[in-house]
Amino acid sequence: MYISTTKKRVRYGETDKMGYLYYGNYAALYEIGRVEMLRELGFPYVLMEDELKVMLPVVSVEAKFLRPAYYDEELEIKTLLKELPSKMITIHSEIYNAEKILIHKAIVKLFFVDMNTDKRISAPAKLINTLAPYFI
Amino acid sequence: MYISTTKKRVRYGETDKMGYLYYGNYAALYEIGRVEMLRELGFPYVLMEDELKVMLPVVSVEAKFLRPAYYDEELEIKTLLKELPSKMITIHSEIYNAEKILIHKAIVKLFFVDMNTDKRISAPAKLINTLAPYFI
Amino acid sequence: MYISTTKKRVRYGETDKMGYLYYGNYAALYEIGRVEMLRELGFPYVLMEDELKVMLPVVSVEAKFLRPAYYDEELEIKTLLKELPSKMITIHSEIYNAEKILIHKAIVKLFFVDMNTDKRISAPAKLINTLAPYFI
Amino acid sequence: MYISTTKKRVRYGETDKMGYLYYGNYAALYEIGRVEMLRELGFPYVLMEDELKVMLPVVSVEAKFLRPAYYDEELEIKTLLKELPSKMITIHSEIYNAEKILIHKAIVKLFFVDMNTDKRISAPAKLINTLAPYFI
Repeated sequence: MYISTTKKRVRYGETDKMGYLYYGNYAALYEIGRVEMLRELGFPYVLMEDELKVMLPVVSVEAKFLRPAYYDEELEIKTLLKELPSKMITIHSEIYNAEKILIHKAIVKLFFVDMNTDKRISAPAKLINTLAPYFI
Repeated sequence: MYISTTKKRVRYGETDKMGYLYYGNYAALYEIGRVEMLRELGFPYVLMEDELKVMLPVVSVEAKFLRPAYYDEELEIKTLLKELPSKMITIHSEIYNAEKILIHKAIVKLFFVDMNTDKRISAPAKLINTLAPYFI
Repeated sequence: MYISTTKKRVRYGETDKMGYLYYGNYAALYEIGRVEMLRELGFPYVLMEDELKVMLPVVSVEAKFLRPAYYDEELEIKTLLKELPSKMITIHSEIYNAEKILIHKAIVKLFFVDMNTDKRISAPAKLINTLAPYFI
Repeated sequence: MYISTTKKRVRYGETDKMGYLYYGNYAALYEIGRVEMLRELGFPYVLMEDELKVMLPVVSVEAKFLRPAYYDEELEIKTLLKELPSKMITIHSEIYNAEKILIHKAIVKLFFVDMNTDKRISAPAKLINTLAPYFI
């Protein structure tokens, strides 16, 4: 298992007239979490696209909204990789508010696409090698 | 059952560097669909907030991304209400591309909150009465 | 001069906690206006990119916020082309609310980039020919 | 004069199909810059709304796009307050890319609104007092 945490403050433009972080803006939090996880592992997503020519479209999202997030709150995004990716990568996101209360959780699945052929492929060997030490 | 359909074109700012509609922007499509469904039923969401003082925060989203949507495509958003709301309202969204292919589907659950007390309530009687004729 | 008008409703996710259309979301309105103007002229922007291999990055924006726009308001976007494009295209946008009051105006300048060479070019002849009849 | 700098990485969802940070997303950068400037000064914007009951709608934006910003670039947002606010506050934003090149600049003017009366007011004394030492 690999766990990564990062922070993100709720911007004004991300709130809605309820005063809550708009429900559609949580997807950006999952993105920030998984991108920072890959960077931390020494394997920035931008290199996946630019060097390996592999991109990761999202295939599914399951999200539970437990409590609202408010303007200017600094949220903690906890990103959990519970298993090695194979045909897909499954990423768990947990969002905590400033009082450390779990306010949101989501499971996002992405697959791997070869940008040259536009076909689905398995997880690149380089990614597997990077992750393997955490899954012994 | 009540079914409503509306159209939405993919804007430039809604695409990402893959050239796809960004995965986080589908939530806006579900919003457009359910709001237009309510308007069609003669019960605009804005009145729910302004007159009934009831708001509908989202409690869960389950989404499947079947195919990408591209810039300037005119998408059809099909919004299906399969059962009368009670403690929650469950809304099914299906997104079709210009070739009428189903590219995305989602189930969004929302609950009802009394804006004065900030407490959860059951579906307002006015909403149930509006919907009842379609669920005989 | 060429004038085009189109409509756009303010979505929930586009409002902020003031209850106003967030100031950063007006740029989407200018985009909708200029894209619909080009479509109306028989020259969709998507063809500019896909067939002519020309893209139009924005070079400047000047915007005046006169009054707020509110949730669910159907705004009218009036897009005015006051002169033929040459090295740049200058587009004036006027936003009117449901009471036909001018609430916002902006001037957006874009230039033309050859997507193959990534260099700035003058307005494509095809665009000039399309527009010329309106500037006699 | 008071100058504040903060960082912001370009997210995937903020890019468009050109691969650039979408022009409409720069407004969020100005927001981040001015909010962090106020926090640094010991006067978080959230307190302005919650304690002083004053909000700051934007009245105008003038922006120049000098070069594109790309996915995953860590941008530096430099926020400059060149004069004490009175009826308005004028904020200059400069955006630098990872190579320290100025890629964007903007002037945003905001005014002060009493949230109880919904009327325009002058800059709150508390804000002036906080800023005064930097403008001697």
